[in-house]
Amino acid sequence: MEADFPFWTDEKVRISDTDHNGHVNNTATGQYCEAGRGELMLHVAGSRGAGRGFAMAVARVAIDYRREIHWPGRVRVGSRVARIGNSSLTVQQALFWWPPKVPPGSAPGTLFATAESVMVIMDPVTRKSMPMPDVLRERFAALA
Amino acid sequence: MEADFPFWTDEKVRISDTDHNGHVNNTATGQYCEAGRGELMLHVAGSRGAGRGFAMAVARVAIDYRREIHWPGRVRVGSRVARIGNSSLTVQQALFWWPPKVPPGSAPGTLFATAESVMVIMDPVTRKSMPMPDVLRERFAALA
Amino acid sequence: MEADFPFWTDEKVRISDTDHNGHVNNTATGQYCEAGRGELMLHVAGSRGAGRGFAMAVARVAIDYRREIHWPGRVRVGSRVARIGNSSLTVQQALFWWPPKVPPGSAPGTLFATAESVMVIMDPVTRKSMPMPDVLRERFAALA
Amino acid sequence: MEADFPFWTDEKVRISDTDHNGHVNNTATGQYCEAGRGELMLHVAGSRGAGRGFAMAVARVAIDYRREIHWPGRVRVGSRVARIGNSSLTVQQALFWWPPKVPPGSAPGTLFATAESVMVIMDPVTRKSMPMPDVLRERFAALA
Repeated sequence: MEADFPFWTDEKVRISDTDHNGHVNNTATGQYCEAGRGELMLHVAGSRGAGRGFAMAVARVAIDYRREIHWPGRVRVGSRVARIGNSSLTVQQALFWWPPKVPPGSAPGTLFATAESVMVIMDPVTRKSMPMPDVLRERFAALA
Repeated sequence: MEADFPFWTDEKVRISDTDHNGHVNNTATGQYCEAGRGELMLHVAGSRGAGRGFAMAVARVAIDYRREIHWPGRVRVGSRVARIGNSSLTVQQALFWWPPKVPPGSAPGTLFATAESVMVIMDPVTRKSMPMPDVLRERFAALA
Repeated sequence: MEADFPFWTDEKVRISDTDHNGHVNNTATGQYCEAGRGELMLHVAGSRGAGRGFAMAVARVAIDYRREIHWPGRVRVGSRVARIGNSSLTVQQALFWWPPKVPPGSAPGTLFATAESVMVIMDPVTRKSMPMPDVLRERFAALA
Repeated sequence: MEADFPFWTDEKVRISDTDHNGHVNNTATGQYCEAGRGELMLHVAGSRGAGRGFAMAVARVAIDYRREIHWPGRVRVGSRVARIGNSSLTVQQALFWWPPKVPPGSAPGTLFATAESVMVIMDPVTRKSMPMPDVLRERFAALA
């Protein structure tokens, strides 16, 4: 399954990610997903800011929680581009967990969540959706 | 639209809910949704703990982000039970925002997100899914 | 003790505020303190933004944790201005917790933390500290 | 300064750590400090849980904010034991930030915060403070 995701992001479970049920809270998993999307955007489109010519906003995030994970541990988020629309992008992700003494890479991690997010390309000034620039479209296609 | 939701939860935007895009971060909206689910469970099933005879876990959360919201402001989360399965429950939510000087109730709020969550009833000891007790099923049905 | 604080802010414990020790995480208490400082600044100085003529930054936050608190519950943060320096402000806070069925005001809350924060007035463009405007000094003095 | 801290913890700035001021929120820095304390405790005392014979609680955290930091970037938290009391422990920390393309170790980081925390050893059952076991005292002394 790892081979299905061309882009990877490292995260680490924080104590403040856990909740009174003893496991990592579902909204912390949302933060890991966002870390993955953010690094993918940085990789494809460079730093956010006026010079980039467009802004991106999250329109939808759906997360399936498959297993509980705990502190301490490491997380890796695999991301791939699933669909490129006229002014939107769909990103699929798989999230894996490793206990602290097992470096990711040395052993298969625990698949604990999968996610699908839709992002919209916006004009940075009007904040309205705009067609995706061709150069961006090509770079995202390379991460399909 | 407010009339479609029988159960309401009050939240308040925190500065730490915002992010460097100047608006409330998508994962804070996930926290508001969880607040709504948590109060609904408390209302229907009482305090969590061994005496309750079952545990609940989130299996899936899908959030559609419709508008940006900002600090300062108040949030209300409307919740309704959309489907009661053999051992699962689907909750739909609508989230509204009000600026600080406009008390919720005095004017319509801004609908900024909708969400659908699936929760699973588990045996508190084995942590495996179990059929929903009838008494719970009836109480959830009253919030449909 | 409540009488010692002229300015009050309401918060509410979120499930995501708790951690695997079963109680509210120490960094969530930091978020409640920030909510109190933010509303105090809004009250005294109006909305943040270029038109305000100055920016404020947190230079130091010290929190003493006195008791564990839990979800569900409500929090009130009392704030007072303890010292007004040339370009800084010291705010002292006391944080109280109430269980969900006991509205704050109907019974004394549980004092669970006290805090002292130092904030610095900065030029909004140069981001260097600047002397506090007299009008601000007078308004802060009213919250001593 | 790095040489003054015998114990190091790696963290990474998340988008959700930032706030509407464009920088990392002060309470996220509190989460990095907690990550450092948590790993130090794990290193000295092993996994939390009943078998450990004691529990630890945070009694006080004071953080001095020296510089703004931003996403994206990496954080390292240096920790040292500053004082060992009868039933308490004082930990001092220094927090450094590196931009994403500069691996920590290849260049000096930006010192952005320092912190001092007091932790209390408690009986895991009564939740009252208890004298620090000698074996723990010796291990903490090695991190002075």
